[in-house]
Amino acid sequence: MPRYKLTVEYFGTPYHGWQSQLDGMGVQDAVEKAIEKFSGERVKVQAAGRTDSGVHATGQVIHLDLSKEWDPYRISEAMNHHLKPHPIVITAYEAVPDSFEARFSALARHYEFIILNRKARPAIMRNRVWHVPHDLDAAKMHEAAQLILGKHDFTTFRASLCQANSPIRSLDRLDVERRGDMIHIFASARSFLHNQVRSMVGSLVEVGRDRWTPADFRAALDAADRSACGPVSPPDGLYLIGVDYPSLDA
Amino acid sequence: MPRYKLTVEYFGTPYHGWQSQLDGMGVQDAVEKAIEKFSGERVKVQAAGRTDSGVHATGQVIHLDLSKEWDPYRISEAMNHHLKPHPIVITAYEAVPDSFEARFSALARHYEFIILNRKARPAIMRNRVWHVPHDLDAAKMHEAAQLILGKHDFTTFRASLCQANSPIRSLDRLDVERRGDMIHIFASARSFLHNQVRSMVGSLVEVGRDRWTPADFRAALDAADRSACGPVSPPDGLYLIGVDYPSLDA
Repeated sequence: MPRYKLTVEYFGTPYHGWQSQLDGMGVQDAVEKAIEKFSGERVKVQAAGRTDSGVHATGQVIHLDLSKEWDPYRISEAMNHHLKPHPIVITAYEAVPDSFEARFSALARHYEFIILNRKARPAIMRNRVWHVPHDLDAAKMHEAAQLILGKHDFTTFRASLCQANSPIRSLDRLDVERRGDMIHIFASARSFLHNQVRSMVGSLVEVGRDRWTPADFRAALDAADRSACGPVSPPDGLYLIGVDYPSLDA
Repeated sequence: MPRYKLTVEYFGTPYHGWQSQLDGMGVQDAVEKAIEKFSGERVKVQAAGRTDSGVHATGQVIHLDLSKEWDPYRISEAMNHHLKPHPIVITAYEAVPDSFEARFSALARHYEFIILNRKARPAIMRNRVWHVPHDLDAAKMHEAAQLILGKHDFTTFRASLCQANSPIRSLDRLDVERRGDMIHIFASARSFLHNQVRSMVGSLVEVGRDRWTPADFRAALDAADRSACGPVSPPDGLYLIGVDYPSLDA
């Protein structure tokens, strides 16, 4: 069966996360309904990242199999037509070999987290940022972030619900950058534990507020204990921005 | 009576523009209601820019007079409390002398217009950008923009409804800059005619699409004729980002 890879952008606030829900309020439900509407086929799609309730994506990647051959561009056009009532859109598309799997072929996942750091709550970026009214020292947050790069037991930054077999992950990037009254945090790894980015961000904010030192942040990691984690951030500022795969030409 | 200057951010999509409406759906109506709720006073506020229906602001400036002395910080806190159901927020505040007028003291107004230039419609930035699916040459748009800087008769780029006495304006900045799949256009002038930014942006997009040359854009200005204008852009991508005033210490 021909296999297709699609890149999906969505505003996560109205949805109960990526995954299919009994009430149909997963992003996946809307995507699968759009596929059924143009192709007549009820398929299950596989996604690179199962984003939580309220988390957004500009670069989610999915794959699906259809029994008929389609021009991938037609697939994206037809899906965007049927997705129109939803804040969900297909931004890229290609045909891929059967060996490609959106979840298991991924070499790296990239997340961005946006904090609005000012007294006043957001008006234009409502639901799209985490509003932190306390002054944050982004340089100190960045300094702390560098202390946990590499391969570690990330139990501290892992939701108690996390179903992964191992708490060991390799964190390749955790950069904190101030741009005016916004703070952007970029996180990259082959894969993340459940709630890992939001747990790390919440703890970095403790550093930014001067309640933790960078050494405290590293000590929290070393404790390998969920109770050492700072308050977990809300989902509003989190975006899955991209997923890397091996070159398909190889 | 003590006078206060406030900076206002708002998401304009749900409103019929800045100005007070009979149906109460002007941004001004929500702002004046919030003032009444904390102070008990029914006041009219004056704004630097009367933004149209659907136009946003990150840096609108208003002034108001209250019969009682208030700590300006308390005013902003009380207003933000009462504005909570609205995508409207006070971001800065100060007491000003009676001679200060948000509209008439302004030395310059700064607008930003954001175009999302890709095939797929926006999901996350819905209502916050103008979606132009055709490839745009931002460098050529910038080149054209430079040809109309300075003092001119802007009749071509003026709504037929415009009530200004004169079509003569001095355009100080019109910069076009690509950042990924977004194109940002920055416009600054002491004052603008009604629909001037949206008219200029719509015509610049004709240049970006290669339907007009930069010389055509300049010729449209020189025609001083509304029918020479390109299609006016929608309001979605337009933000009033700031207003300059003489130093209050002077």
